[in-house]
Amino acid sequence: MRDLPQMLDLMASFLKENPFPDSPIELYEPCNYLLTLGGKRLRPALVLMGYELFRDNVETALPAAWAVELFHNFSLMHDDIMDAAPLRRGEPTVHHKWNATTAILSGDVMLIFAYRFLARGGDADTVLQLLQIFNRVATEVCEGQQMDLNFETRSEVKIPEYLRMIELKTAVLLGAALEMGATCANAPAKDARHLYEFGRLAGIAFQIQDDLLDTYGDPIKFGKQVGGDILQNKKTLLVLKTLETASELEGRELQKWMKTGSEKPDEKIAAVRGIFDRNEIPKLVSADKQRFQQEAFRHLELVQLPEARKEILKKTVADLLERDS
Amino acid sequence: MRDLPQMLDLMASFLKENPFPDSPIELYEPCNYLLTLGGKRLRPALVLMGYELFRDNVETALPAAWAVELFHNFSLMHDDIMDAAPLRRGEPTVHHKWNATTAILSGDVMLIFAYRFLARGGDADTVLQLLQIFNRVATEVCEGQQMDLNFETRSEVKIPEYLRMIELKTAVLLGAALEMGATCANAPAKDARHLYEFGRLAGIAFQIQDDLLDTYGDPIKFGKQVGGDILQNKKTLLVLKTLETASELEGRELQKWMKTGSEKPDEKIAAVRGIFDRNEIPKLVSADKQRFQQEAFRHLELVQLPEARKEILKKTVADLLERDS
Repeated sequence: MRDLPQMLDLMASFLKENPFPDSPIELYEPCNYLLTLGGKRLRPALVLMGYELFRDNVETALPAAWAVELFHNFSLMHDDIMDAAPLRRGEPTVHHKWNATTAILSGDVMLIFAYRFLARGGDADTVLQLLQIFNRVATEVCEGQQMDLNFETRSEVKIPEYLRMIELKTAVLLGAALEMGATCANAPAKDARHLYEFGRLAGIAFQIQDDLLDTYGDPIKFGKQVGGDILQNKKTLLVLKTLETASELEGRELQKWMKTGSEKPDEKIAAVRGIFDRNEIPKLVSADKQRFQQEAFRHLELVQLPEARKEILKKTVADLLERDS
Repeated sequence: MRDLPQMLDLMASFLKENPFPDSPIELYEPCNYLLTLGGKRLRPALVLMGYELFRDNVETALPAAWAVELFHNFSLMHDDIMDAAPLRRGEPTVHHKWNATTAILSGDVMLIFAYRFLARGGDADTVLQLLQIFNRVATEVCEGQQMDLNFETRSEVKIPEYLRMIELKTAVLLGAALEMGATCANAPAKDARHLYEFGRLAGIAFQIQDDLLDTYGDPIKFGKQVGGDILQNKKTLLVLKTLETASELEGRELQKWMKTGSEKPDEKIAAVRGIFDRNEIPKLVSADKQRFQQEAFRHLELVQLPEARKEILKKTVADLLERDS
């Protein structure tokens, strides 16, 4: 199997051979802009890896892989408007560089292009299967984003609701990427299902890790400002775990800080981190992550293939889940 | 063949049996809201009529018909944000009743649901064909909307550009609706193509008529404020035709009014209408409409079916093109 850098090279060539149309430039330029900001291209790589578990001519899976990447970028473009986010991958977001109208319409056409590539995903039977998987998770991603928006204004969020939200908003697409790759390769349905579960559960672990890294990561390796979630008063798993497991006094102290402005950011970050530390929240949250991670790899083991065949996929996902945590 | 009211009944039952999910309610309620505001349901009726030209069991075409209606409503929901429109079908628009975030995300999920219904449009081969048609026109509709946005800020728009814009933004979807119906019925490719051309050309005629009715329609039958385009300084075909055919003096007079505010709306409407009348613009624009209309019906004639079979479709479209003009 090709490793991640080789997959990324394939993707880059495919992108070069399949550009957006030139005109109207106002519509397509923002699509090209967001895509050239990069990103990990993890999702399309998972489609290709899901395919290569079963078959070697991985080029066949490139259109489906690219459909998944376009869907991901569409959702980023629209989410950034909803979140009023000024930056994405360190550069101005589309609605910030242009305006909301542009980000809406260019996002729409990007979603439609995702379906255009999907329609090139194989013979008619394969395309129908891909379409069904894609429609299912695309719906779920919207539902997850809606839950996330709802949580912002709700006073109380329960941990199972939070886990469901990150599952829908992020994790199911990782699972579906692997499932779609397997589907392109005509893999047995049972194997495709285990790969979906592997991606979904690893995706939840990955998001939990993201919550941890936002407060406890190495600022250089993490690539974002550490403590950002604290300053934005985000209801992360660290917060919800504190409210569930710590004393009422500690809970009230945390809620007090979450209603405080960010005039003294360092002080606020230190205070909230102090609450987490005193209550061993990082340890508890890491244990949650570990549980999802283990469950994920159990599903990978159940895929009926020689272990050697799974090695690169296993290592790629394991590496992602080891970052600084 | 069933007539338009019968088609609409079928559609209403289908909608009742295929509601959006209940939850998250914040995501799906705006979708239901916009759909229950009504609208003519012309596009899905065209899918059903395109099908019934060739086959009788029209229920088969209902999922594809509904996909087209959902796509149309998705585009309305997003266009209304971009146009900052407060009203749609006489009721508050989604972004006005809720907010832009809601209208973006509910519109997104509505587009995805269009593809969900499309995936139920027939066997795998049929679905792949439907998907290709749908992807093509969905892209074109976005391109048309972008052209329309561009025209707002451009000083000069040529008539062929304007016609191309209304073709992309509106007409191709009418053509594709008929083509998709024919495709569901496994009609010969040549007939499907003629039906597409019939719908596309009739759609252009229909839009030209809309420009005429906005200034010259019977306010009661038209259902909108007559003169709205004039007050919004829209570059309609009436305006472009004046700038192309009238004297420089008349052109300058029109442009002067288009830079004037709408403090005295009746005066402005009367003055602009006076310019159109003096230069016989309604006659010239009606002639344009007639040309597209005739060309449209020529394509319907070329469909290899007994004339009787085409009667209801022919009458439905002819009736739509006769409204007050």
